[in-house]
Amino acid sequence: MNLEFLSGLKAPAQTKIVMLIMDGLGGLPREIGGKTELETARTPHLDRLAAHASLGLTQPVGPGITTGSGPGHLAIFGYDPIQYQIGRGALEALGVDFDLHPGDVAARGNFCSIDADGIVTDRRAGRLPSAESRKLIELLRTIELENIQFFIEPVKEHRFVFVMRGEGLADDLSETDPLKTGLPDLPVRALDPKAEKAAQAANYFVAAARKLLAGKLPANSILLRGFASFPTVPQYKDVFDLNAAAVAINGMYRGVARMVGMTVLDVAGETVADEFTTLEKYWPQFDFFYLHVKKTDTCGECGDFDGKVAAIEEVDGQIPRLMALNPDVVIVGGDHSSPAVLKSHSWHPVPLLLYSRLVRPDGLFEFGERACQRGSLGVIPATHVMPLAMANALRLAKYGA
Amino acid sequence: MNLEFLSGLKAPAQTKIVMLIMDGLGGLPREIGGKTELETARTPHLDRLAAHASLGLTQPVGPGITTGSGPGHLAIFGYDPIQYQIGRGALEALGVDFDLHPGDVAARGNFCSIDADGIVTDRRAGRLPSAESRKLIELLRTIELENIQFFIEPVKEHRFVFVMRGEGLADDLSETDPLKTGLPDLPVRALDPKAEKAAQAANYFVAAARKLLAGKLPANSILLRGFASFPTVPQYKDVFDLNAAAVAINGMYRGVARMVGMTVLDVAGETVADEFTTLEKYWPQFDFFYLHVKKTDTCGECGDFDGKVAAIEEVDGQIPRLMALNPDVVIVGGDHSSPAVLKSHSWHPVPLLLYSRLVRPDGLFEFGERACQRGSLGVIPATHVMPLAMANALRLAKYGA
Repeated sequence: MNLEFLSGLKAPAQTKIVMLIMDGLGGLPREIGGKTELETARTPHLDRLAAHASLGLTQPVGPGITTGSGPGHLAIFGYDPIQYQIGRGALEALGVDFDLHPGDVAARGNFCSIDADGIVTDRRAGRLPSAESRKLIELLRTIELENIQFFIEPVKEHRFVFVMRGEGLADDLSETDPLKTGLPDLPVRALDPKAEKAAQAANYFVAAARKLLAGKLPANSILLRGFASFPTVPQYKDVFDLNAAAVAINGMYRGVARMVGMTVLDVAGETVADEFTTLEKYWPQFDFFYLHVKKTDTCGECGDFDGKVAAIEEVDGQIPRLMALNPDVVIVGGDHSSPAVLKSHSWHPVPLLLYSRLVRPDGLFEFGERACQRGSLGVIPATHVMPLAMANALRLAKYGA
Repeated sequence: MNLEFLSGLKAPAQTKIVMLIMDGLGGLPREIGGKTELETARTPHLDRLAAHASLGLTQPVGPGITTGSGPGHLAIFGYDPIQYQIGRGALEALGVDFDLHPGDVAARGNFCSIDADGIVTDRRAGRLPSAESRKLIELLRTIELENIQFFIEPVKEHRFVFVMRGEGLADDLSETDPLKTGLPDLPVRALDPKAEKAAQAANYFVAAARKLLAGKLPANSILLRGFASFPTVPQYKDVFDLNAAAVAINGMYRGVARMVGMTVLDVAGETVADEFTTLEKYWPQFDFFYLHVKKTDTCGECGDFDGKVAAIEEVDGQIPRLMALNPDVVIVGGDHSSPAVLKSHSWHPVPLLLYSRLVRPDGLFEFGERACQRGSLGVIPATHVMPLAMANALRLAKYGA
C-alpha cells in the first residue's frame, strides 16, 4: 500500500487529528525485572486515554533496525523511510534549523589546513573552536555570485552547513574531501549534466573561500561533502488532503515537517507547556497537528532514566489541555526508542496509542511497553499509523465496491 | 508470497475445506464499554468451535483501508486485492447476477435525454422509473450485430448493464458520457488498437439504440461508461488444485466466486438454512465450499445492531449441520467490517476462526472481536487465510528439502 494508493482514497472531512511524538519514547528496564521509563512514569492521563484506545508498537524502519530521527519521523508521517531518504547535507541543514527550501543544495562543510602546495595537512583544522569558526564563517558569508545565494551556518567546532540557492541546481556532485591528509582537495564534479551549474558554483565558492582564508592557519581552506537537495516528497495536502501544522522547537523536526508540507508554527517559549499553548492557539486553523517533544530523547541518549521518566510525566500533565480541544483522533507515539540504559537510539519497537471514538478499545488501562505488546494493533510498521489515523478521522473513502 | 509460489506447492488430498463468510462480520460496540454485534450474539456453537480453533483478525486490503465486497472477497479468496482489480462495468454486471464470461466487456449504461442537435439535456432521463426502463430495455435487446452478442440487464431507474460478448473484444475504451449537460455525447474510442473491434461494436449499438428510442423522450438516447472486462485471474483449480463450489444467493458474490473458478451452486430458497441445505446436497462433489451470508452486512449498513446480532445467531444455529459433515478445515470470517454504529463498511480488522484438528488451540472459548485480538493468528492480511486453510487441509507440499 503506497502513498499514491492512499491518496486516491482521501476524502474531505471536518475532523481533527493530533500526532503527539515523544522523541525516543521506547525504553528498557533499568534492572532485570524492572520497568521501562514509560512504565515507571506516573501517567494517569495517558492511562485513561489508553483505556479508550487501541494500543500497539511501531517499527520505524524494520526489525532490528535502529533509526535516526529523520527516517523515524518520515515513517510515522507515512513515508517509506527507505524509499524516501534525506541526504547528509540536507539533514545537517535541517539539524541547525536552517530554513531549507525545495531546490536548495546543502552540504556538510568544515575548515581544514592546507600547505603552500594545496595539500591537505589537517582535515579538521585542529578541531577549530566554535568561537573561532564563527568569525571565519562571517568572512565566508561575504562571498557572492550572480544568480546564486550562498548560506553558511555554524555547526560545532570546525563544522558548518553550506547551502546554495538558485534556479537549476542539482545535487549529483562529487565531494572535495580527499578523505586523508597528504593529498590535495578535489574539485567538485557534476556527476550528472544537470548538476553542472551547481558544480561551478561550489567550485567558485571554494576558490573564493581559500582566498579569504589565506594565512588564517590552521583554518586556511574548506572541504565540502554530502551534497544533498531538500528532498521533494509528496505533500501532506496532496496525499492526505490535510491542512497540517507542526509544533516543534528543534530545527531537525521543524525541517522534516516542512519537507512533507506541514506549516511549521512558532512556539513562544521552550517548554512542553509552551508547545501545548501553541496547539491551543492554532487549533481552529488546521486539521492535523504534529507536536514534538524532544526531552524524552535527550534524557534517553544521556542515560538519564529518571530525567526521561520526568519528561514523560511532564507530557502527561498536558494531556487534559489536549483532550479539552476535543480532537477526533489522537496518536501518541515516538519516532524510535532511546532506552536510558543504552544511552542511544535503539531498534526496539515504540509504544503507540491510537485514540478515537471509533476504535475497538483493547480493555488495557495503561500506556507502557508491555501493555502495548498486548494491544490490538500488534507490532506494525510505523508507516501504518497515518492510514489508521485517517480511517479513524473518516478521511478515507471505500476501496472498490 | 504470491499465488504462483503457492501453486507450486499444491498437493492433492481428500480433505474438505469450508469457508463461511458472514458479510461485514466485524463490528463495534454500540456504546462505550459495550460489546460488538458478534460479542453480543449468543453463539454457543461458534464458541465451541473457537475452543478448538486458532483465532485472529484479518485485514482485507491494508491498515485503515475500508474495502468494498469485491476486493474484500478477492482478498480472503487469496488474491492481492490491489493487484487484481475488478472494473466498474464488470462489478455492475456481477452485481445484477449477470453470468459474465471471460472475454466479455461490460459497461454501466443509462438512459438520457438529447435534443434535436444531439446535445445531452438530462444525463439521467429524469431518473426514468424502473418500470419504464424495463420496457425500453426490451427494445434495446432487439439490436443485433454479426459475431457480437449484446446483453442489456436492468439495474435501477435509468440505469442498466451493457455487455458485449464475442471474439477479440477488449476494454480499453473511452466513455460516451460528456459528464455534463449542454454537450453532445462522445463516440467510443479504442484507447488501444486491440480494442478497435469493441469500439466499433459499442458505437454501432449506441447508434442503433438512438434510432429505436427516437421520440421516446425523456429516454431518447443512452450513455455508456466504465467499460471493463471480466478480469482473468488465476483459477482455484490451478492455484490450489481445489474443486471449489460457491453457495451464495446474491449476484455480486456469485460473480466473484465464478471469477476465481468456483462452481456456483443454485440455492433453493433464500434463507441461511437453505444455503446449508445446498452445502449438504453437494457435499460429496466438491472439496472446497465458500458459503456466503449477506444479512450481517445488510443489517450493519442499515445501522440495525440487533438485526445483525440476530443474523449472526441464525448462522450459529446452522453450525451443527456444518460440523455433522465432518469438514477437515473450517474458516469462519468476513470480507470486511460493517459496524452498525457506522452504518457502512469500515476498516476494522475482521474476526477470523480457523478450525482444524491440526491447529494449536488458543484456549479461547468465544468467537468475538476481543477474543480474536488475543488469538494466536494475530492481525493478518486476509490473503494469508487460504495458505493457512490449505496447510491445515494437508494440501501443501514441503518447500525445499
